[in-house]
Amino acid sequence: MSSTYGENLKLSIFGQSHGPAIGMTLDGIPAGLPVDLDGLQAFLNRRAPGQNGWSTPRREEDRPEFLAGILDGYTCGAPIAAVIHNKNTRSGDYANLKDCPRPGHADYTAQIKYGGFQDAAGGGHFSGRLTAPLCIAGGLCKQWLAEMGIQIGARILSIAGSSVSDDPLDPINPQIPDFGGDFPVINQNAGQCMRQAIEAARKEGDSAGGRIECAVTGLPAGIGEPMFGGVESRIAQIIYGIPAVKGLEFGAGFSSACMRGSQCNDRYTVTEHGFQTTTNNSGGILGGITNGMPLVFRVAIKPTPSISKPQQSVSLSKAEVQALVVKGRHDPCIVPRAVPVVEAAAAIAIYDMILGNTQTNRRK
Amino acid sequence: MSSTYGENLKLSIFGQSHGPAIGMTLDGIPAGLPVDLDGLQAFLNRRAPGQNGWSTPRREEDRPEFLAGILDGYTCGAPIAAVIHNKNTRSGDYANLKDCPRPGHADYTAQIKYGGFQDAAGGGHFSGRLTAPLCIAGGLCKQWLAEMGIQIGARILSIAGSSVSDDPLDPINPQIPDFGGDFPVINQNAGQCMRQAIEAARKEGDSAGGRIECAVTGLPAGIGEPMFGGVESRIAQIIYGIPAVKGLEFGAGFSSACMRGSQCNDRYTVTEHGFQTTTNNSGGILGGITNGMPLVFRVAIKPTPSISKPQQSVSLSKAEVQALVVKGRHDPCIVPRAVPVVEAAAAIAIYDMILGNTQTNRRK
Amino acid sequence: MSSTYGENLKLSIFGQSHGPAIGMTLDGIPAGLPVDLDGLQAFLNRRAPGQNGWSTPRREEDRPEFLAGILDGYTCGAPIAAVIHNKNTRSGDYANLKDCPRPGHADYTAQIKYGGFQDAAGGGHFSGRLTAPLCIAGGLCKQWLAEMGIQIGARILSIAGSSVSDDPLDPINPQIPDFGGDFPVINQNAGQCMRQAIEAARKEGDSAGGRIECAVTGLPAGIGEPMFGGVESRIAQIIYGIPAVKGLEFGAGFSSACMRGSQCNDRYTVTEHGFQTTTNNSGGILGGITNGMPLVFRVAIKPTPSISKPQQSVSLSKAEVQALVVKGRHDPCIVPRAVPVVEAAAAIAIYDMILGNTQTNRRK
Amino acid sequence: MSSTYGENLKLSIFGQSHGPAIGMTLDGIPAGLPVDLDGLQAFLNRRAPGQNGWSTPRREEDRPEFLAGILDGYTCGAPIAAVIHNKNTRSGDYANLKDCPRPGHADYTAQIKYGGFQDAAGGGHFSGRLTAPLCIAGGLCKQWLAEMGIQIGARILSIAGSSVSDDPLDPINPQIPDFGGDFPVINQNAGQCMRQAIEAARKEGDSAGGRIECAVTGLPAGIGEPMFGGVESRIAQIIYGIPAVKGLEFGAGFSSACMRGSQCNDRYTVTEHGFQTTTNNSGGILGGITNGMPLVFRVAIKPTPSISKPQQSVSLSKAEVQALVVKGRHDPCIVPRAVPVVEAAAAIAIYDMILGNTQTNRRK
Repeated sequence: MSSTYGENLKLSIFGQSHGPAIGMTLDGIPAGLPVDLDGLQAFLNRRAPGQNGWSTPRREEDRPEFLAGILDGYTCGAPIAAVIHNKNTRSGDYANLKDCPRPGHADYTAQIKYGGFQDAAGGGHFSGRLTAPLCIAGGLCKQWLAEMGIQIGARILSIAGSSVSDDPLDPINPQIPDFGGDFPVINQNAGQCMRQAIEAARKEGDSAGGRIECAVTGLPAGIGEPMFGGVESRIAQIIYGIPAVKGLEFGAGFSSACMRGSQCNDRYTVTEHGFQTTTNNSGGILGGITNGMPLVFRVAIKPTPSISKPQQSVSLSKAEVQALVVKGRHDPCIVPRAVPVVEAAAAIAIYDMILGNTQTNRRK
Repeated sequence: MSSTYGENLKLSIFGQSHGPAIGMTLDGIPAGLPVDLDGLQAFLNRRAPGQNGWSTPRREEDRPEFLAGILDGYTCGAPIAAVIHNKNTRSGDYANLKDCPRPGHADYTAQIKYGGFQDAAGGGHFSGRLTAPLCIAGGLCKQWLAEMGIQIGARILSIAGSSVSDDPLDPINPQIPDFGGDFPVINQNAGQCMRQAIEAARKEGDSAGGRIECAVTGLPAGIGEPMFGGVESRIAQIIYGIPAVKGLEFGAGFSSACMRGSQCNDRYTVTEHGFQTTTNNSGGILGGITNGMPLVFRVAIKPTPSISKPQQSVSLSKAEVQALVVKGRHDPCIVPRAVPVVEAAAAIAIYDMILGNTQTNRRK
Repeated sequence: MSSTYGENLKLSIFGQSHGPAIGMTLDGIPAGLPVDLDGLQAFLNRRAPGQNGWSTPRREEDRPEFLAGILDGYTCGAPIAAVIHNKNTRSGDYANLKDCPRPGHADYTAQIKYGGFQDAAGGGHFSGRLTAPLCIAGGLCKQWLAEMGIQIGARILSIAGSSVSDDPLDPINPQIPDFGGDFPVINQNAGQCMRQAIEAARKEGDSAGGRIECAVTGLPAGIGEPMFGGVESRIAQIIYGIPAVKGLEFGAGFSSACMRGSQCNDRYTVTEHGFQTTTNNSGGILGGITNGMPLVFRVAIKPTPSISKPQQSVSLSKAEVQALVVKGRHDPCIVPRAVPVVEAAAAIAIYDMILGNTQTNRRK
Repeated sequence: MSSTYGENLKLSIFGQSHGPAIGMTLDGIPAGLPVDLDGLQAFLNRRAPGQNGWSTPRREEDRPEFLAGILDGYTCGAPIAAVIHNKNTRSGDYANLKDCPRPGHADYTAQIKYGGFQDAAGGGHFSGRLTAPLCIAGGLCKQWLAEMGIQIGARILSIAGSSVSDDPLDPINPQIPDFGGDFPVINQNAGQCMRQAIEAARKEGDSAGGRIECAVTGLPAGIGEPMFGGVESRIAQIIYGIPAVKGLEFGAGFSSACMRGSQCNDRYTVTEHGFQTTTNNSGGILGGITNGMPLVFRVAIKPTPSISKPQQSVSLSKAEVQALVVKGRHDPCIVPRAVPVVEAAAAIAIYDMILGNTQTNRRK
């Protein structure tokens, strides 16, 4: 596997859904950074399951135990390591998955790649549960970025089956602090409609996808490295590490493919805050480098593959079609719980780039 | 800068638009792989400028000189190095860009990051011209993948301002060989309509964006490594290294965010070719790992930022708004020339993952 | 910090001497490899402290708890994670070290680098205790190499203050299985003499350095990558990660600097085992690549810096010279316990190179 | 191959001894650093062949052509690329080497690894000629380090067959500026004796090895990252990338293995320059991190394997012993020419570590 990320910091994530523990090591972090463990727990609670109508009733506290790297409330320069012990471990529910893969899950590809040796229980290392250690690392990075005046906030933009999307973000001056909560939206009416769409899917034994939008404010201009170390490249690598992500766009994104240059180019202007652009189709990135405008991107999340409706699968041993009913109860929509995960991933990528920003900023 | 890519192969790209030469080094390639230089040149010619109505009249032959790594038509195990000498080098056209940045270009971010020391001529290292060495590396990888039965083909899906898109690809059995040419589409009528949209933009001194779809067939199941070494992550990192890319989606992509699980999950079946899925919303990837179905992704390309219409910019030294007219002639639409670049990028990412595929495929 | 190693496998080590736990994550290992936990424990016991006259009386069981990556006795393809909980944790013994650094330790450099935020207790992350997780990873790699017929054995070559060195190894056919035990030597009389030298140092409140020689047999020819991925480079990087290592040489090493070419060049011959050399001054490596002869290298270990004799140090706050007596009891000689650590480091480096050996071995 | 180096900067080296060109790309260097091309040429001339009695009469000017990354005498932030065109290219001298490998060379290991596809002429990519691009990169890094007050100097310590070694370096205050020239030593009488030893070897158709000592002054304390990113680890990886290096030791090195702790520990003191140690057995490194004392290391160089005396080799095709006479003329001792290469390698490793030094140096 390759569950490591980072050019300057080194994040390593481990664990299987029903193994003894999941966890992470985060290396390369400077000494002397404050760590607010209560704040981190509050962040992790946004991702934790079992708290409302749309998430799995499996309850895990997701309370990390820090084994290394933090001393008296500050980073000590040594690698930071934390584990979350699984309480809800291996059961017999998953015995059949190696032969009869669940559609939309990694059961089949894991079987091919690991030849039957993989830990299939609960999806093993492919489980969405592995986003918990990602949130430990990302929650810490978020705190350190906030210290520099960099805020990261994401929200639900749309849910499959809902007729409305959330209100557009102000791309010039997005209001990060308004996000948060367990169903973060700008327009609460739209949010209500989206919740109903999730409930409707749940009642039918089905699930729903959705989109998440993330904005980062306070980023200085000059972060990112062309060609393959650009902000889009680095964020994309980690965002696509989140299970169920199938699309990612920055700024105007796919809409820019429908534009002419005269529409898409953001014109420069001078404001009290310095040089800015009057629109933000670039999403704050030109040539892979931040331009000082808010960084904006959107993520497409596919619907939870685990549904209780009967589905067509195959028996790998018998090489014949077989009906499958996925047992257990699962999130009818993971989009709300994925919101802090997207924030965490962005925080890790951005903090990594800031650590590696070796430009001297000499001036000619 | 960080113009290097790869976990197993190591690609390093260098050059500035108007410098003496551009080029690349490709390290980590096994010895004994055949190299078809004529085939490579034919591939590079698909990207070369100056051959039709929609590209810049700047003419460069883009004929690489190989300095190392190839002997008697085969890779020799040493790093492969190639350069393309620039004939059309530095002129006075770009003197003003450090003070008055072109909207939509990297002029401003480069000025901030490199403090005026950057090579601004022609966009310097940010120029689309740097995709030529990317195509050298990618063209070679494409040949080696073809030897294994893996075909990569991309085509134009839509152009801004055209009312039609190309016909949908058959996601189960895409016909890769039909692509190619300087305006690759499935439906020639749609292609004609798209060409007219480009011509309309050109006449108005404007430019047009568009979408490219890429399909890879013949990929064995089991390629890719979770979590951050998944196929989507690796392809995304390199695709976002192509200038002007603002969006990327795999399989059903953003559409999957509008689906329910019962629609989105690809059901398994048994065919004469083995296990397959009856739809391909996953784009051939589950859990970051190939499932043996065609790999399909789409890329959003923003319109060329260089337009001849007057635009609003700023003088960085005077800190005031200033009108800007971009001189020189530029591609009114880079989408057609970006098609082989997308293929090249995908080929590099896939060949890199195949080199690193260390699974033993023991069977339990 | 940068406590990560590996190009193909990814090893991440964490922990501080007196923190809650130390541990490691080992990513990139194929699925389906057998794991012999009893064999691993026996290997770890060779490093464990407190079992004889020359090691610290601090007793830790060094019994790893595996949190992930192993299922039913086999690797499952997911990252392997293990922790060792510290039982003998933080005390007040180390309060003074941030102001009055111990000579020969990292106290001073840690203070400069981490600004006082470092965990100074017991040396923190710089403690030799961190070689325990290195031995977990290395012990596993050793098992997997043994499955391929590759044996790794190290032994004590000399101890400071002893008038004798161990007998020379047969560089053509070293007898790996003879090593092992808690004081591995070929010549037991020499070993007895070395033990006495350690005891003499201990009695005087002093410590002793020494040399370790390591041999690897069964390595196929063709492993390693020039220029910076050569066998010497990769082994050197990890061996110098072991605390107290100050020198490393391969084959004839520093002796080859005293030779003429006609002496140093190993002549080729043909044997029943195929092509061999009649001497092994190269240590089994030519051009960074294994030649099929035994890999041989020697490591210089400096004497344990912690001695009970009074030493001259400084008070960093007062900027004046200050006498220091290091409290607690420490190994008078870490060389015996470093022997399995050297084996572990070599095993990790070699297994990493084998995983990355992408040559197709086509033949012209 | 893996001819790339660096964690923060990315160095990529390419070329074969008798190919069209050799060269390098150096990525990740900040913009705005001055480049003194005349100074660089003077540095490269120290390595260039054909200028005296102990080096090959093959004459190459080793004059790099810069293709990218430098503009108007300053780095521009884009990757730096340079090539040296080979004038003395492929001849028929090397046809036999694929079947009858030269003892001590990489001919055999290359044949095994690359299956006959390797470029055998002149050693191909394994040639010492590849240290020329290493010196381009290292010469640049040396200049940038000098700007920070960091000086790097190496000299010949001993030559095989000479009865004398050079005078010891003052490890507390080494006089770097005294080095340089084509046979750098402190004691000119010893140097004369060493030259005679080389001449004696040459006359007998033989070659001689030797040792090089390198010192770095002006290094701030706090550079380097434990465990595997320590100064010794990073320097070792690149130094072992230099052909013919078989040993490396830091500070007292192998001598420390013969010491007791009370001898080896460097005692701290307070001087007008701040905290120092009264001896420098650590070689300026404790726990992998610089302590502000001079960095000192020694390198063992084996004798040039190419000798004109007849040697025993084998025919790989016939599987029988065969006599070999190496044709052409070669350096009877490469140690003098390796001196600037060692400096270059050290400069690259150190500059890389300085770029990655992300410690905040907050103080508690």
